[in-house]
Amino acid sequence: MSILIRGGTVVNADRAFRADVLTDGDKVVAVGTSLEAPSGARIIDAGGQYVMPGGIDPHTHMNLPFMGTVTQDDFFTGTAAGLAGGNTTIIDFVIPNPQQNLIEAYQQWRGWAQKAAGDYTFHVAITWWDDTVHRDMGILVRDHGVNSFKHFMAYKNAIMADDETLVKSFRRALELGAIPTVHAENGELVYQLQQDLLKRGLTGPSSHPLSRPPMVEAEAANRAIAIAGVLGTPVYIVHVSCAESLEAITRARANGQRVYGEALAGHLIVDDSVYASPDFDFAAGHVMSPPFRSKHHQDALWHGLQGGNLHTTATDHCTFCAEQKAAGKNDFTKIPNGCAGVEDRMAVIWDAGVNTGRLTPSEFVKVTSANAAQIFNIYPRKGVVAVGADADIVVWDPEGSRTISARTQHNKGGFNVFEGRTVKGIPTTTVAAGKVVWRGGQLMAVEGAGRHIDRPAFVPVSAK
Amino acid sequence: MSILIRGGTVVNADRAFRADVLTDGDKVVAVGTSLEAPSGARIIDAGGQYVMPGGIDPHTHMNLPFMGTVTQDDFFTGTAAGLAGGNTTIIDFVIPNPQQNLIEAYQQWRGWAQKAAGDYTFHVAITWWDDTVHRDMGILVRDHGVNSFKHFMAYKNAIMADDETLVKSFRRALELGAIPTVHAENGELVYQLQQDLLKRGLTGPSSHPLSRPPMVEAEAANRAIAIAGVLGTPVYIVHVSCAESLEAITRARANGQRVYGEALAGHLIVDDSVYASPDFDFAAGHVMSPPFRSKHHQDALWHGLQGGNLHTTATDHCTFCAEQKAAGKNDFTKIPNGCAGVEDRMAVIWDAGVNTGRLTPSEFVKVTSANAAQIFNIYPRKGVVAVGADADIVVWDPEGSRTISARTQHNKGGFNVFEGRTVKGIPTTTVAAGKVVWRGGQLMAVEGAGRHIDRPAFVPVSAK
Amino acid sequence: MSILIRGGTVVNADRAFRADVLTDGDKVVAVGTSLEAPSGARIIDAGGQYVMPGGIDPHTHMNLPFMGTVTQDDFFTGTAAGLAGGNTTIIDFVIPNPQQNLIEAYQQWRGWAQKAAGDYTFHVAITWWDDTVHRDMGILVRDHGVNSFKHFMAYKNAIMADDETLVKSFRRALELGAIPTVHAENGELVYQLQQDLLKRGLTGPSSHPLSRPPMVEAEAANRAIAIAGVLGTPVYIVHVSCAESLEAITRARANGQRVYGEALAGHLIVDDSVYASPDFDFAAGHVMSPPFRSKHHQDALWHGLQGGNLHTTATDHCTFCAEQKAAGKNDFTKIPNGCAGVEDRMAVIWDAGVNTGRLTPSEFVKVTSANAAQIFNIYPRKGVVAVGADADIVVWDPEGSRTISARTQHNKGGFNVFEGRTVKGIPTTTVAAGKVVWRGGQLMAVEGAGRHIDRPAFVPVSAK
Amino acid sequence: MSILIRGGTVVNADRAFRADVLTDGDKVVAVGTSLEAPSGARIIDAGGQYVMPGGIDPHTHMNLPFMGTVTQDDFFTGTAAGLAGGNTTIIDFVIPNPQQNLIEAYQQWRGWAQKAAGDYTFHVAITWWDDTVHRDMGILVRDHGVNSFKHFMAYKNAIMADDETLVKSFRRALELGAIPTVHAENGELVYQLQQDLLKRGLTGPSSHPLSRPPMVEAEAANRAIAIAGVLGTPVYIVHVSCAESLEAITRARANGQRVYGEALAGHLIVDDSVYASPDFDFAAGHVMSPPFRSKHHQDALWHGLQGGNLHTTATDHCTFCAEQKAAGKNDFTKIPNGCAGVEDRMAVIWDAGVNTGRLTPSEFVKVTSANAAQIFNIYPRKGVVAVGADADIVVWDPEGSRTISARTQHNKGGFNVFEGRTVKGIPTTTVAAGKVVWRGGQLMAVEGAGRHIDRPAFVPVSAK
Ligand SMILES: [Zn+2]
Ligand SMILES: [Zn+2]
Ligand SMILES: [Zn+2]
Ligand SMILES: [Zn+2]
Ligand SMILES: [Zn+2]
Ligand SMILES: [Zn+2]
Ligand SMILES: [Zn+2]
Ligand SMILES: [Zn+2]
Repeated sequence: MSILIRGGTVVNADRAFRADVLTDGDKVVAVGTSLEAPSGARIIDAGGQYVMPGGIDPHTHMNLPFMGTVTQDDFFTGTAAGLAGGNTTIIDFVIPNPQQNLIEAYQQWRGWAQKAAGDYTFHVAITWWDDTVHRDMGILVRDHGVNSFKHFMAYKNAIMADDETLVKSFRRALELGAIPTVHAENGELVYQLQQDLLKRGLTGPSSHPLSRPPMVEAEAANRAIAIAGVLGTPVYIVHVSCAESLEAITRARANGQRVYGEALAGHLIVDDSVYASPDFDFAAGHVMSPPFRSKHHQDALWHGLQGGNLHTTATDHCTFCAEQKAAGKNDFTKIPNGCAGVEDRMAVIWDAGVNTGRLTPSEFVKVTSANAAQIFNIYPRKGVVAVGADADIVVWDPEGSRTISARTQHNKGGFNVFEGRTVKGIPTTTVAAGKVVWRGGQLMAVEGAGRHIDRPAFVPVSAK
Repeated sequence: MSILIRGGTVVNADRAFRADVLTDGDKVVAVGTSLEAPSGARIIDAGGQYVMPGGIDPHTHMNLPFMGTVTQDDFFTGTAAGLAGGNTTIIDFVIPNPQQNLIEAYQQWRGWAQKAAGDYTFHVAITWWDDTVHRDMGILVRDHGVNSFKHFMAYKNAIMADDETLVKSFRRALELGAIPTVHAENGELVYQLQQDLLKRGLTGPSSHPLSRPPMVEAEAANRAIAIAGVLGTPVYIVHVSCAESLEAITRARANGQRVYGEALAGHLIVDDSVYASPDFDFAAGHVMSPPFRSKHHQDALWHGLQGGNLHTTATDHCTFCAEQKAAGKNDFTKIPNGCAGVEDRMAVIWDAGVNTGRLTPSEFVKVTSANAAQIFNIYPRKGVVAVGADADIVVWDPEGSRTISARTQHNKGGFNVFEGRTVKGIPTTTVAAGKVVWRGGQLMAVEGAGRHIDRPAFVPVSAK
Repeated sequence: MSILIRGGTVVNADRAFRADVLTDGDKVVAVGTSLEAPSGARIIDAGGQYVMPGGIDPHTHMNLPFMGTVTQDDFFTGTAAGLAGGNTTIIDFVIPNPQQNLIEAYQQWRGWAQKAAGDYTFHVAITWWDDTVHRDMGILVRDHGVNSFKHFMAYKNAIMADDETLVKSFRRALELGAIPTVHAENGELVYQLQQDLLKRGLTGPSSHPLSRPPMVEAEAANRAIAIAGVLGTPVYIVHVSCAESLEAITRARANGQRVYGEALAGHLIVDDSVYASPDFDFAAGHVMSPPFRSKHHQDALWHGLQGGNLHTTATDHCTFCAEQKAAGKNDFTKIPNGCAGVEDRMAVIWDAGVNTGRLTPSEFVKVTSANAAQIFNIYPRKGVVAVGADADIVVWDPEGSRTISARTQHNKGGFNVFEGRTVKGIPTTTVAAGKVVWRGGQLMAVEGAGRHIDRPAFVPVSAK
Repeated sequence: MSILIRGGTVVNADRAFRADVLTDGDKVVAVGTSLEAPSGARIIDAGGQYVMPGGIDPHTHMNLPFMGTVTQDDFFTGTAAGLAGGNTTIIDFVIPNPQQNLIEAYQQWRGWAQKAAGDYTFHVAITWWDDTVHRDMGILVRDHGVNSFKHFMAYKNAIMADDETLVKSFRRALELGAIPTVHAENGELVYQLQQDLLKRGLTGPSSHPLSRPPMVEAEAANRAIAIAGVLGTPVYIVHVSCAESLEAITRARANGQRVYGEALAGHLIVDDSVYASPDFDFAAGHVMSPPFRSKHHQDALWHGLQGGNLHTTATDHCTFCAEQKAAGKNDFTKIPNGCAGVEDRMAVIWDAGVNTGRLTPSEFVKVTSANAAQIFNIYPRKGVVAVGADADIVVWDPEGSRTISARTQHNKGGFNVFEGRTVKGIPTTTVAAGKVVWRGGQLMAVEGAGRHIDRPAFVPVSAK
């Protein structure tokens, strides 16, 4: 089937220009002015609208077993919600238990993901180390389209990677042409601060940010960057939430090191005043790590995106409902960490980024799809509207608006950290793999329509 | 006429890929695998080679009247030398005398440029201020394809712009959709340091760098950036030569300000030991401003290019012969400032940048053409190998090598700051405006073949 | 006459220790435990209190003709108010009109200062340049006890010093063993921003901070530091009010440059929300330059004092009454700039600095007297409680408190930027030149009792 | 017995002044002009010389069992060498084996120290953790005059402290009024780099610096500072050797954190070219950790001392002879780490610091004694020439000179990293505890004359 998107302004990372876009099957086959519609083609009028690459959320957790429970969104509901928001690809995480065989865990996640409505691919977490892990990293890269590995520097007594694991895994990744990514928080400090707060009787959600101050995050970011720098590998820091952490990235980049940083939509928009709420459900609903920060840090993150020191925006989409959050009623350390967002990322970043003049439309495309596609080596299949690229396209109406609410959202969990925020700039049509999956407020997601996207290892460019 | 460049690896800023490239007239008309050669097409075998956008040198001075003399290279010899080096476009400077009418000066330069063999366009310098300057900036933008204005913060008692001029001109540029650029050196300090050195009898070329230490440059860069920041205009700093100046840019960018920086091939490669030479001709041959710096600063500049805090590479090509340089035999302040480079820029940056692993081929394209094209708003006409772009292409043999020397160079001046350096990675073919102008070591530059490239004012992207 | 201060804790910059302090005439003659009171000595019980060097306010303007009017406080009322606050020495400013002979201006100020109740000394401003200024700087240093010169980088069309004056004056200061000081704001930017605001009809006091944003200050600070760095002279930046300006100092110090910074009590305590007041008198009452800043900048200033990148605290005491401020009713640029503070500096800094744990008592002494005494070369005559030092002492009750108000203050002007603030930690006794001048809430200031303090030129230490 | 040091220029941290100094027993009893010599007093002519507090080396290892051997210098020879160089106090280290009882280890070191000729005191290392360590830290502070604890972040599989130990020990120190100190190098990275180098057959001493690059040190410094910052404790970083590590300190200080840094005389003077020597004994003789660095880092360290971001100078005096160093003939990781220096520290820092204009004599006193005395709470007993202070004095001839050599040194080990360096500025007399122990080139050190100096816990200043 063909789709002709007519009369819009195509926005890519490098420029914006008037053009029609024609798809055939799951590919873009033409980008140009006054394209003819093949017979049977569906025509979508994009007049006065932008035509952009579908969003890539490089950080989601669908169907995640975590802290003794499982997230509300599975791969179908999660990716479907993403499609409603103009997001056509997610990069999720395989998180083996310590001692669990990597390939086994990987297959588990691949199984869960069968039902996805949108495209997906996986970072694989290195939560422990022995020779089989070393071996299986190789197998994943060679045979399973994995080119990135995740490391948690937090979550002591669970999945925290110590320096030895970081060094060994980073080095292995380098040798395989894969990129290490890190959740940067000093797990030991978090743990000690949590114990202190609990001892002092400060058991509510307002203790959550106190147990994870910016310096705890910045320390870990700096450490991961130092290890990567010494070994000569690039590194990608997930969910950079504070000025100090960003400064570690900025310093390293200014020294010529290849360091990438990711900002979450939540961290860019929501501030830490939410934890002061006396309403447990509300405060706990915002418990994620790193926590929301003050306006000062939000400004810093925007500056990071503007100045090229942060590269991607994500959500860490990880939905727990009120009942699940209630597990931490008497102990904030037991509140399952996580918030939703995959459905709203594109809109809130457009609203707070483009409408305010912080980002141009092209820069919006960079930080919502193109950079992620390049960093994780699925460009130009993803991240650009161009001939040969996947037909993953969002038609964006800069004049449309909607008010975000848990009541109207498509993802599960019953909570939304952007609740009540009215955004201007919304997706009117989402095309995924050449199919219209969202149009006129109707979601047409199909369970199982999503495909696993193999990501090849990085190999140096050669003219040979 | 058509040219089919076959079998190479196309390198653009966003990626590298195997593809043939077909031109027709002065445009690229196809980029793809296994392209058919139209009848009569010239076929160029690019097997094992890179096919890249022709270089853009955003900072040259051809035919420049300066310090009482005129540069050796006129627009023909200068652009022809550029073509031999894979450089197909230059951005030169119109520099009105204080009190000279801007339009008159602009026409003067346009006249001199008629003989150019390669494409050219002009920054116009604002060397004085009154209402006519304000008016004429508008005329240049609206009617003459000028979208950038240059400001000299050095050269006291000549073309130095004081803060009042900077503020007024930057503000005017903002209102016109043009970008201000600056030569950043504190002219007052330079002047005083020169007088001191002369008084102390230190009249030789070794005094040149002493009169322009890094802090003198960094101060001015910081000032220009502050003025731009306060007014809300982007700014472009030409020939950033030292770590401290780069730090001013890096700080501003980290704060979200739109600041761009340019590094000269000379500053990236040549160090300040040249000024210690007892051979006047040799030392004076290297006299340019800012001067060459120590290795520490060179490393910093490379880091700036790698980390995205510097964006373009240029040459400040400005050729004076030994006889001209001899004007400063007894007073270094009278040595005409300037060095050549347009012919060697691409090769020395490839050699010191790509061969060393500092830059990928795509990053090389960014800093040698794509970024300049975007910053000065001639993208995607220039700066990318894509359908619809100008047929300005360089075919690059990463295995070829040559030894740079004034004896074999095509530009005038009889001196080369890269003398004796053997580079690996050379242009085997240059196509400019759809014509083969350099191939197999033969230069086929045609006087007058170059075209003025209008650069439109910046207007915000809109879907309307 | 002798005074024995008994039972207190002496606080000097290097340590705190239990000791009695005995004065004789205008000098301290003994510091030790269990000192005997000479017959006739007045005994002051300092039990439970601190005994510290009298404050030195290195930045005041008494009797200042400025913007067409004269400050309310003359040298008597101003220094008397200082004594009530534990401040025993001020460094005021001689500000010649452009073209005015320096010595003549200096004598004018010396005349006005005859009536001072506390000790005083003068920075002399360099507001213009010719050979007589060069000569007179020498005369002031050699014959008049002046070792510091002030430069205004703001106040265009009035007393602003351009780069040429800065360079020449800094160099002259270096050769004389004097230290240059600067009011750092880019006067051209301030002027243009003021004109813009007025043109846009934004004539009220809320425009004042908009005309002097942080970048305007930071630019000038950076420039002054660069000039000093190039010339090799130390430099002292007065009233550092923002993070960016402090960063310029911090950078230079980290590079080994001798740069000193001064913070005003007002900038440390009061934030810029005052300018939003609809009450003209209130808002205008806070108009000074640089303006008050946001909390972010206040935090930065405290960090500067804590980390040793700022060295002194001052007030820029400069009192204009409501009638005077009303001159700018319809044009904020005509509001006389200035606020009082000499009476409250010690108390507000103790309260916000020591009571909060930011500063130790010894660090309080450093930033309220010792550092100023050392930087301006009147140490150890001033700035330490030690044998041989001037008997300028404040007895400080850390438990005492008072509420600051214009209704109860001793200085003129009828306004107080700290209005309503209750401070804990107050001077119970001030001894100046061996006389009790403040005790039990009674001010015993004597007109004319103050002395001019000669400040010798800096000469390198030698064992010869 | 009394000593009258006559006619010199006393240099303290706050100023320099002409005065005679009189001692009685082990104390200074008078500082003033024209002091009378009591009968029987020994008179020392200090005309044309400086009279300064005896040096404090806050980082030595006498009699250290390390890497399977014991240092050549015991407490007698080591402290005696210190006296010859004007150094009257050392702070050495008690380093318990993992699992060793702290008090037992402490007593062991106290026993070894009985023979010291100069005063000494101990940092105690925390090399492991359990409840007894927590308890014994308290005993050491309360009963044994210990107020600082050392943590090694390097030396994996030996004495390395992991993050858990760091957090717990830092917190315990805070509660006790003690200061944590750290050897900052990421032990995991060092270990992995060592293994890599050995595997690649790079077994010689030139691999030593490659296994400990600056980033390895900076990471650990940053981590220790972050932990201290989160917990609210001050922290002291020993042997800061590189720009990046210093930057971590500078950043933290600029944020108001109480962080102190120590530079080694060796790192200030000697560069890393020594490791390139083909002479194993020479190269191995320089093996210490962190290793010597390039000139760039040396400049940074001097800037750190000048700008107040580094506070003390030490030596890490730790002497191994050639036979001991030879243990690493075939494996650089087995070369005992350590170099001498206690005898030369004062002279090389004077020569490279004061003679070059980097430091004033008062600043020299700060970084060679006064700051260490204040940071480790033995001021004003040590670190100042003042009534009541210990009679630890060095008379310094700024015109005297000597050439440093292992052939003429007093310490053991047969090697000197400053070999052949001629310094101007030497101690002509050292007085320790009121006794002349060095004069006219004769060393009169007495075994056992040194005393343990109790260092009290830090308690907040109070007027009560
Ligand atoms: Zn995470
Ligand atoms: Zn996550
Ligand atoms: Zn220039
Ligand atoms: Zn130029
Ligand atoms: Zn001022
Ligand atoms: Zn003032
Ligand atoms: Zn160590
Ligand atoms: Zn050590």
